[in-house]
Amino acid sequence: MLKEQLERIVGENNVSTRSSELYCYSFDASQVKGKADAVVRPQTTEQVADIVRLAAELGLPVIARGAGSGLCGGAVPVNGGIVLDLSSMDRIVDIDIDNLQVTVEPGVVHEKLNQALSPYGFFFPPDPGSTAMCTIGGLMANNGSGMRCVKYGTTRNYVLDLEVVMADGKIVRTGSRTLKTASGYDLTDLMIGSEGTLGIITQAILRLHPLPRARSVILASFETTTLAGRAVVKILSAGIIPSACEILDSTAIETVRKYDPSVELPDAGAILLIEVDGMENAVKEEAKTVGQVCSELASEIRVASTADESARLWKARRLVGAAISRIDPKRSRVYVGEDIGVPIKELPGMLEYVRSLSEEFAIPIMTYGHIGDGNLHTGMTMDMLDEKGMEIVNTVADRIYRHAIELGGTVSAEHGVGKARESYMELEHPTSMAVMRMIKKALDPQGILNPGKMGL
Amino acid sequence: MLKEQLERIVGENNVSTRSSELYCYSFDASQVKGKADAVVRPQTTEQVADIVRLAAELGLPVIARGAGSGLCGGAVPVNGGIVLDLSSMDRIVDIDIDNLQVTVEPGVVHEKLNQALSPYGFFFPPDPGSTAMCTIGGLMANNGSGMRCVKYGTTRNYVLDLEVVMADGKIVRTGSRTLKTASGYDLTDLMIGSEGTLGIITQAILRLHPLPRARSVILASFETTTLAGRAVVKILSAGIIPSACEILDSTAIETVRKYDPSVELPDAGAILLIEVDGMENAVKEEAKTVGQVCSELASEIRVASTADESARLWKARRLVGAAISRIDPKRSRVYVGEDIGVPIKELPGMLEYVRSLSEEFAIPIMTYGHIGDGNLHTGMTMDMLDEKGMEIVNTVADRIYRHAIELGGTVSAEHGVGKARESYMELEHPTSMAVMRMIKKALDPQGILNPGKMGL
Repeated sequence: MLKEQLERIVGENNVSTRSSELYCYSFDASQVKGKADAVVRPQTTEQVADIVRLAAELGLPVIARGAGSGLCGGAVPVNGGIVLDLSSMDRIVDIDIDNLQVTVEPGVVHEKLNQALSPYGFFFPPDPGSTAMCTIGGLMANNGSGMRCVKYGTTRNYVLDLEVVMADGKIVRTGSRTLKTASGYDLTDLMIGSEGTLGIITQAILRLHPLPRARSVILASFETTTLAGRAVVKILSAGIIPSACEILDSTAIETVRKYDPSVELPDAGAILLIEVDGMENAVKEEAKTVGQVCSELASEIRVASTADESARLWKARRLVGAAISRIDPKRSRVYVGEDIGVPIKELPGMLEYVRSLSEEFAIPIMTYGHIGDGNLHTGMTMDMLDEKGMEIVNTVADRIYRHAIELGGTVSAEHGVGKARESYMELEHPTSMAVMRMIKKALDPQGILNPGKMGL
Repeated sequence: MLKEQLERIVGENNVSTRSSELYCYSFDASQVKGKADAVVRPQTTEQVADIVRLAAELGLPVIARGAGSGLCGGAVPVNGGIVLDLSSMDRIVDIDIDNLQVTVEPGVVHEKLNQALSPYGFFFPPDPGSTAMCTIGGLMANNGSGMRCVKYGTTRNYVLDLEVVMADGKIVRTGSRTLKTASGYDLTDLMIGSEGTLGIITQAILRLHPLPRARSVILASFETTTLAGRAVVKILSAGIIPSACEILDSTAIETVRKYDPSVELPDAGAILLIEVDGMENAVKEEAKTVGQVCSELASEIRVASTADESARLWKARRLVGAAISRIDPKRSRVYVGEDIGVPIKELPGMLEYVRSLSEEFAIPIMTYGHIGDGNLHTGMTMDMLDEKGMEIVNTVADRIYRHAIELGGTVSAEHGVGKARESYMELEHPTSMAVMRMIKKALDPQGILNPGKMGL
């Protein structure tokens, strides 16, 4: 019955209720599991609106999904219902360079968007690690960002206007084609980061940024993470906003060295990888200044003078993810406690805290992060079938979440809340959760949009 | 009765119901007029909460007010009620350079904040023309910006966290001390630009930016506004984001020259004033590139090589406001149709349209604007007692608003909607006004927060 109703909207080939296919939509890249009643692949905004109206009639959940690369169960149908696979709505509708904007459907893969923009000399700055698979819709739903956030901000800084299907099936435009506006409530930013709980994004107008002409990378080694943290503040105070500013602690350094001995990483308490970008001479000047500023605190500084050298220095950072996963073939990386954010001054202390947990619970934890914006990623691996081990991982994650909140931080800086972190929402937002619930109730009174997420 | 109740909250000296004082709170810098029942000057968040609770009990409107420098009647008590004068809550609570943030109360005057930050080598980038008087609270309520928006964005790009008194008197924190977050609905951005209709901002944590080390100004003259518009796109495509990019049309040029003949402005169809900022060498490189990029389209280019020269070139732009107001001592500047925003490609056409209106209605209109972000300011003057004349001014403003909306633009890019522009909200936001009303109703069911504004 549901299948037939959906088929009338999107055609036979775009609906499935076969259990083998439903299984593929029962998880994302996290440990969260669910079970859909049906999966549907709409091709147009009108189809999305019709599906939402049908779901509202039937009182069924509707869960928007992009690539399924999320790390918190945001797109997992934990309460059943209809999974809206938006990956077929993947057109780049209009590249409008003169207005510095591009119109896209939500299913466009991040990497493809930047490939399409590159010939014009422009780019969409957010740069998630999952660029090769994640969709722009998913990025918007979670306010994703990546390494370049220090200088370029998060996804929300680049969204001018959204087309959204609301819980009653109405199609709404939230913003404007202008680069700035002071007219009306900022519904665009309300939708960004709402993880499909307030509406389904079916189109977006994004602001573009000119591609920098040059980039340079500086590697600085420090005896302690605290010294590295102080160097970051000094760099920023010197008037330089790096395009990336990454930290690796000693565990991360050791793991990468063990994984690939050819990576020439110094033996240090912590290293910073700092990237600056912009005009050619500016990049040279900034790289020099970064080196000078760090020299008082660092034990060693290497400044890449060629693109090749930059790539070599950057290699260590790119290897971190792979190094974690391949330490032990029996263990998988568990994505919990992996995306906290703290005020930047607190990051060195947070790194020390994670190291103490690693010792206390006797499990290896690799820590690395976007120190320029206070975002720390931790990598824990575990044999998923080892119940006791998983319990330890979850205990460690719990301690990490709580400590981040105590420091005035957040349980998620860029991956989202979803199901995995919803139990921490009251703790992190003790006064504002009530306001979030009022808004949720006002815009989705039946609670059909991605229920069971974000603690709402 | 009301007076006594308010006095119990804030003390005798901080309440007034005398008509002479109420008169001072019956208007802002626009033509909108209202009448308050009482004016109250709270000193603490708790007092604001008590006042809002009292207003809720009595069903009285509460109108937050900063400096009263608004240009759309946003802080005018059009339906009576209690005006909350927040100018006494003007403490800079904490300058936290290591975390790149500052905590302020809403009554802090914009200029004073930047004066306090300057010794640390940091600043709060939004730069409204009213810097000497406007408050940070007013800037946030209207998402103000100014000339530096092209590169630095608007006020909302710098607000990390707000303390807000909701319509029921509850005190809520909307954000986080982290520089980025993906946890929960973005209530901070919902409050920014909501003009006191969803809550009263009592404290804010703002993100800081390092002060640029150098600045340079380029003046480029063009035969037509269209050529100037094309030059802007070419500059941006060359990878340069100017810190300011202003346009003056021929009427503006003539008016400034007439007002102050010492200003050496070229006789042109339009001029661009382009400012670049950053590291010393970068600024030189960028200024040179801007000159090269413009050279094919411009009839004349002057690049300032010293700070003095920059100041001289910039003088013309700063004189525009004064020049308008002093053309004729009998006439005052009327702030209607003065703040539209359009997609940047449409700005030259919009300038031509305004010029055609000036001819059709035979009134002088000076146009100038932030072409880098599509924001156009128009200056019309009129004898306020001349009813017929005022009718013409309002007709012209109406045409300007409608044309901006037709071009995919907005009736306000940075001044706000308030009372002055509320009748255009349905036209500009045909689908989303219903959503804004749902949110308003959910968060302020009695409608006591700044009623009669924004078309809600």
